[in-house]
Amino acid sequence: MSVADEEAAGSSQPKAARWQYTEFWQGRSGLTFGVEEVLHSRQTDFQRIEVVRTDAFGRLLLLDGLVMLTERDEFVYHEMIAHPALVLLPAPRRVLVVGGGDGGTVREVLRHPGIEHVDLVEIDAAVVEVARAYFPQVSRALDDARLHLHAADGAAFVEAAADGAYDLVLVDSTDPVGMAESLFGAAFYRHGARILAAPGVLVAQTESPFDPAFRTTLRKARGLLARLFPQVHMYLASIPTYPMGTWSFTMATTGPHPTADFDAGQAAERLAPFADALRYYTPRVHEAAFALPAFAERMLEG
Amino acid sequence: MSVADEEAAGSSQPKAARWQYTEFWQGRSGLTFGVEEVLHSRQTDFQRIEVVRTDAFGRLLLLDGLVMLTERDEFVYHEMIAHPALVLLPAPRRVLVVGGGDGGTVREVLRHPGIEHVDLVEIDAAVVEVARAYFPQVSRALDDARLHLHAADGAAFVEAAADGAYDLVLVDSTDPVGMAESLFGAAFYRHGARILAAPGVLVAQTESPFDPAFRTTLRKARGLLARLFPQVHMYLASIPTYPMGTWSFTMATTGPHPTADFDAGQAAERLAPFADALRYYTPRVHEAAFALPAFAERMLEG
Repeated sequence: MSVADEEAAGSSQPKAARWQYTEFWQGRSGLTFGVEEVLHSRQTDFQRIEVVRTDAFGRLLLLDGLVMLTERDEFVYHEMIAHPALVLLPAPRRVLVVGGGDGGTVREVLRHPGIEHVDLVEIDAAVVEVARAYFPQVSRALDDARLHLHAADGAAFVEAAADGAYDLVLVDSTDPVGMAESLFGAAFYRHGARILAAPGVLVAQTESPFDPAFRTTLRKARGLLARLFPQVHMYLASIPTYPMGTWSFTMATTGPHPTADFDAGQAAERLAPFADALRYYTPRVHEAAFALPAFAERMLEG
Repeated sequence: MSVADEEAAGSSQPKAARWQYTEFWQGRSGLTFGVEEVLHSRQTDFQRIEVVRTDAFGRLLLLDGLVMLTERDEFVYHEMIAHPALVLLPAPRRVLVVGGGDGGTVREVLRHPGIEHVDLVEIDAAVVEVARAYFPQVSRALDDARLHLHAADGAAFVEAAADGAYDLVLVDSTDPVGMAESLFGAAFYRHGARILAAPGVLVAQTESPFDPAFRTTLRKARGLLARLFPQVHMYLASIPTYPMGTWSFTMATTGPHPTADFDAGQAAERLAPFADALRYYTPRVHEAAFALPAFAERMLEG
């Protein structure tokens, strides 16, 4: 259907608009999902949680109307927040995941046999319940004996944690608005650095570099981390259902350089026991993810 | 008379409007654009051409309702279809661009001072007119003295071209349905190989590997090219307004390997005269683009 046809039809959207949901990225532009069925909808003390079945991406989890994950492409985000740091570290054992109550990030972390203890701090216990009920392939690692679930505020948890308690901190937060804002602030990062052992790594999701609305966030996060860590590097992954289709993560380390100190051969050995389960991350993808488009390089310098 | 003049004369009817347009990717899911204004709309012998002003991506060119380019992110596609092959070749001089009447691809090709002759074969002359009128930043290289414009069928042009006539063939086609289908076929690729000098490279846009609808296309194109060229490799780029946000190109060469035979230092020297104008492509991005996600590697093998 052409633009002109739609206009002639006098409708802002094709028929059955109530069966579509659009996450607006900027203005009235964004990603539209064909919704087959609403499976779950509830308002918690923290947010609105919705699970819908879509025509193109399987089940979709929305928090306050924003796409958290879809069955079809969640593997990209979860593999890419977890494995680059896990493989860079020589022998990570203790991991803290802030947010990520759906379980996708800890599923990836727990694939590594060397991991002994994971604390997952999710402020909204209902997210965990909903993930268990509607996303079994995402949440299945939540029952792993090495996993310790905490229904708590991430910023407070990090503040209370002991010095050097973790080899890796993963900040699997929602957007830096409302309750997740504290997870992008100076105090949070300061404690994040304090509770890391050496060598240690912190990785945070930092929105899309293509989205003008979040460029300030991205640069601010990088600036704050650069005062605390000798190495701070952005990397990218292709996530079709996130705004602009390309997402950034910021990796801060106590020393190791994410590519210069990365041994692809050793990485392949470490991944071998579960390489067949990975659908995005490979040692080559690791190195490639840190090669930023020219505009992104300039944005970080500017 | 230009398109803009025709509109001023009232021979077409631009309308102010505020509504949304969705390019459906699968079912009722897809990318939605907030439309501020329809700038141009016409039916040619080949297709419907529309130019609208969007709230988030600037001007948008649609052909038969499919997104061809937006002002905001066209740089990614055009840089990434052109520069990887141009920099891989030691001294490319003669280039054929099939499709791409908007001029974006030739703009990138003609940045290279060594290029002597470019044939641009666009079946629909109206695309060129519309690009000149509404996308001056995309179409400006169409006036370069080295550029030769042909309003002709790409498949026929390639069939009639002389053996070894080009160092590089770029297939800047629409989707492999309708009139562009021949540009993904065995005969077209056979002539593409025949008209290349050695060393020579052919690059074709090959849709998104994340889109199940085009996996067959992608594998078929690769299979056909692999019978004709010793080197066939897929690479990726992040394009927010294309389906799934990540796009693939397939590069076939008469010999050079796109990464093993790529000299990043030499590439940087070649790019230096215009590196400031590039917003996506860098030598590091070149190498990274060929590192495919695990699922894409498996898809090509399978």
